[in-house]
Amino acid sequence: MKNRNQLKVRFLGGVGEIGKNMTALEFGKDIIVIDAGLTFPSAEMPGIDLVIPDISYLVQNKDKIRGIVLTHGHEDHIGGLPYILKDVNAPVYGTKLTLMLCEHKLKEQRVNDYTLNCVKTGGVVKLGCFSVEFIHVNHSIPGSCALAINTPVGTVFHSGDFKIDLTPINGEMIDIPRISEIGKRGVTLLLCESTNVEQEGYTMSEHVVGETLDRLFADNLKRRIIVATFATNVHRLQQIIDLAFKHKRKIAFSGRSMLNVVDAASKVGEINIPENMVVDIEKIKNVADKDLCIISTGSQGEPMSALTRMAAGDYNQVQVGSNDTIIISASPIPGNERSIYQVINNLYKKGAEVIYKSITKIHVSGHACQEELKILHTLLKPKFFIPVHGEYRHLKKHCNLARSIGMKDNNMLICEIGDTVELTQKSMRRGEQFQAGSRYIDGLSIDDSESVVRDRKHLSEDGIIVAVCCVSEYTGEIMTDPDIINKGSILTDEQVLEAKKIIFKTINAFDLKASADLSEIRNSIRKNLRNYVFKKTKKNPMILPVITQV
Amino acid sequence: MKNRNQLKVRFLGGVGEIGKNMTALEFGKDIIVIDAGLTFPSAEMPGIDLVIPDISYLVQNKDKIRGIVLTHGHEDHIGGLPYILKDVNAPVYGTKLTLMLCEHKLKEQRVNDYTLNCVKTGGVVKLGCFSVEFIHVNHSIPGSCALAINTPVGTVFHSGDFKIDLTPINGEMIDIPRISEIGKRGVTLLLCESTNVEQEGYTMSEHVVGETLDRLFADNLKRRIIVATFATNVHRLQQIIDLAFKHKRKIAFSGRSMLNVVDAASKVGEINIPENMVVDIEKIKNVADKDLCIISTGSQGEPMSALTRMAAGDYNQVQVGSNDTIIISASPIPGNERSIYQVINNLYKKGAEVIYKSITKIHVSGHACQEELKILHTLLKPKFFIPVHGEYRHLKKHCNLARSIGMKDNNMLICEIGDTVELTQKSMRRGEQFQAGSRYIDGLSIDDSESVVRDRKHLSEDGIIVAVCCVSEYTGEIMTDPDIINKGSILTDEQVLEAKKIIFKTINAFDLKASADLSEIRNSIRKNLRNYVFKKTKKNPMILPVITQV
Repeated sequence: MKNRNQLKVRFLGGVGEIGKNMTALEFGKDIIVIDAGLTFPSAEMPGIDLVIPDISYLVQNKDKIRGIVLTHGHEDHIGGLPYILKDVNAPVYGTKLTLMLCEHKLKEQRVNDYTLNCVKTGGVVKLGCFSVEFIHVNHSIPGSCALAINTPVGTVFHSGDFKIDLTPINGEMIDIPRISEIGKRGVTLLLCESTNVEQEGYTMSEHVVGETLDRLFADNLKRRIIVATFATNVHRLQQIIDLAFKHKRKIAFSGRSMLNVVDAASKVGEINIPENMVVDIEKIKNVADKDLCIISTGSQGEPMSALTRMAAGDYNQVQVGSNDTIIISASPIPGNERSIYQVINNLYKKGAEVIYKSITKIHVSGHACQEELKILHTLLKPKFFIPVHGEYRHLKKHCNLARSIGMKDNNMLICEIGDTVELTQKSMRRGEQFQAGSRYIDGLSIDDSESVVRDRKHLSEDGIIVAVCCVSEYTGEIMTDPDIINKGSILTDEQVLEAKKIIFKTINAFDLKASADLSEIRNSIRKNLRNYVFKKTKKNPMILPVITQV
Repeated sequence: MKNRNQLKVRFLGGVGEIGKNMTALEFGKDIIVIDAGLTFPSAEMPGIDLVIPDISYLVQNKDKIRGIVLTHGHEDHIGGLPYILKDVNAPVYGTKLTLMLCEHKLKEQRVNDYTLNCVKTGGVVKLGCFSVEFIHVNHSIPGSCALAINTPVGTVFHSGDFKIDLTPINGEMIDIPRISEIGKRGVTLLLCESTNVEQEGYTMSEHVVGETLDRLFADNLKRRIIVATFATNVHRLQQIIDLAFKHKRKIAFSGRSMLNVVDAASKVGEINIPENMVVDIEKIKNVADKDLCIISTGSQGEPMSALTRMAAGDYNQVQVGSNDTIIISASPIPGNERSIYQVINNLYKKGAEVIYKSITKIHVSGHACQEELKILHTLLKPKFFIPVHGEYRHLKKHCNLARSIGMKDNNMLICEIGDTVELTQKSMRRGEQFQAGSRYIDGLSIDDSESVVRDRKHLSEDGIIVAVCCVSEYTGEIMTDPDIINKGSILTDEQVLEAKKIIFKTINAFDLKASADLSEIRNSIRKNLRNYVFKKTKKNPMILPVITQV
């Protein structure tokens, strides 16, 4: 059979969107899964806590899954793992910090049945017909890897998230020699991330942030310094710690995820904190402002984060005042602008100085810009190319970039979630669609349908009107005056009166004695009220008729 | 009395926020109002269409109001006018395009009783003890003015929205000579806009956008060109029209507000369209792609705008395809990023080329950057300064900028909505607070309270549970099984069953025969259900107990 010689690349997430990265490679009876990410919800998904990939396909084929390989420890690559391992218990492979962060998540979600296998960079793991080599890359979290996957149709190279940093902090630069060797040997397919494909040139080195921060420490000798950044940016944390040491300040960590990451990174030796330097956040009152640097979460204005609560005056341990200089060492992720500016406004109102993106070189991206992407393409010289990790516009521009350095249009594909690509050594084409998409995590439950989110959006835009009426089961008589309850919707007293009349009339139009269908009456009430309310208010609240028979 | 000699500056909007600009000056028995703007709602205000200032103070003092003076015709300066004139019918003053745009709004909102007085730039209007001079400035809409207001305590200068454009389109540069004269004569208070205070240097001239567009027209000779921009940016429209003429293309306008503004600007001679150049959007099928340029709304990804509907394949008149080059000549306003990127992704999926902010000089701001602000401050040499039109961070940085060129801290104030500032020739200090804030416009009604918005947010995050029960008025007996209706909230069947039991138990705990208070029972049901639901789901849906007595 022809299918026997095909590798199937299946996209479960991370294409046509930013977030919840997940790709599966399938050949014969073997599947490996690359990453298991989550997405934080947009304003379009009220009340939803997290979004993870729909893994129905993996559940249906769980006996084939030889392993889940993780490129690095960011939420959009590992955050879905606890939910996925509940349904698909496959062994997990990753570098040590990645696994340490996973372990913490698994415990939090009370997943007990799992196998985490630590891989060193440069290490190779054999999984069914695949062998996966972990290759060191630069990124904004230590232990980040690209994957060179040996398959029966040749090498598939997955870039993971990467940049090329010639002066990295605490480590080596991306393993260009090894990538070059793999390129020489021949690569069938490149899957490459696209986050910064719209940015010209090169991403600056993490090193330059240290230089900016050093100057800010020197300029604020008598003030307390609070730096907000991404908890997982361990090299950023290391730079801040080193500068605090140089400028003779103690360090206090603030925010749950900051404490978690520092704990995990310390355990695996990815962060080095001089002895006696850390002060518990509960005890910072014993340290003079000029001798303290607080490292905090909340650089995106997340509602419950430490910095947001400090700004709102809602965080007992840290009272922000006029002797504070607050440095936000991050860029707003699109969609977070309003929240982070709200935090900045509140910090200013408390009299603090705030330093944010208006100063350049206070943050650098962890992702490759155009010239770096071209280097990877050029070294690997893949036969086929599929851009990943990006919205459609990024994937499209990444194809334009690949074309500009010689890739042929017939050898590239832009994929969406649920797409399968069939790959041989000599051909690449679209295969069948499979069930894929989003699952919403909401409080303690997982909801597979989108109806709850739809209902919430409807409620939030136009409110709800509950129309209540009691009728006699025996006589069909209306027993009480209809009642209207009106939440998040605006009806005047007069309109409420009129609405009650409409309910009354609608019910009376049915012969209830002849045991009419209640659902029919409810639909009729809904229709009549909806027409009336729309005519009067140009709004379409959700209408819930409640008829009780007594 | 001391108060007699005080000018009161009252802030009704536009400070501590971007949008709904409105300031009142009050001296003795005279009040003038500067601008009457609106704000488009954020994602935090589900279902709200518009936000306007709370004008209770003006309504209480409407006999004192001598006029409403408008600096220019942008929504955040005139959009609230129809709602305000319904309550406060004062004469309105502005330049001709501003008034033409107001007139259209007033008709749309069926306001018939109004007086619009056209003022030429350079003109002076006497309003009670005030005389208001309209001074020409550059901005992204024609007819923009700063105001030099002669008051009994000296000149108050209001910048309006402005930039300094040395090569403006269709008109003069900002009236620097007149501003210099006013500065020489002496200015007591400067109220200056702060939109771009975080940007170094100068804002580029509108002219450079024309150069970029010219190159894009030349690069796309065989393709249809669609340019999306702000409808009110009449000079941008003029440049596009001129380029279309140069490149021998016809023009079609798309989007309701685009048609309105072009109509208004044509009537007052602010836009010049060569004869026979405009094609009705319904008839563009008769024009070859290479001969057509469509000018469209939707540069912010607004849900119902022409470009958004084109991108969704939902706009009959324009089918976007692979021969289209779409130019988005605008920057995303913070908060709109996700929407506009969604539109761009959809346009790419249809095969179009999309050119947006990744190309520089495709849009310029209408607001002064740091060096331009310094020029205004330096020419006017005001005794006192209050920054306006900005979030707190902008106002704070504007004060820093003023300080850097010599303004004393004691002579500056940062104000919030509802603040009064008391001004004499020699002093400025904070006065009393007055009732001010936001009114929400929702469909056809105006709601003064925030409770509806709060309800909607609550509904949208956690959903609603309606608990229904019928009890006998006479015996206190429960007549039917309690019912649970559950929208936007996630309860399992088992949890619904348990919730019904809780209602049953709660009601039975009261002696209904002894005519217990129903509201007490409702509260009790609400409390018990809330505890149960939170324990099980970690969510707090709105709980609506409905008890009907029959």
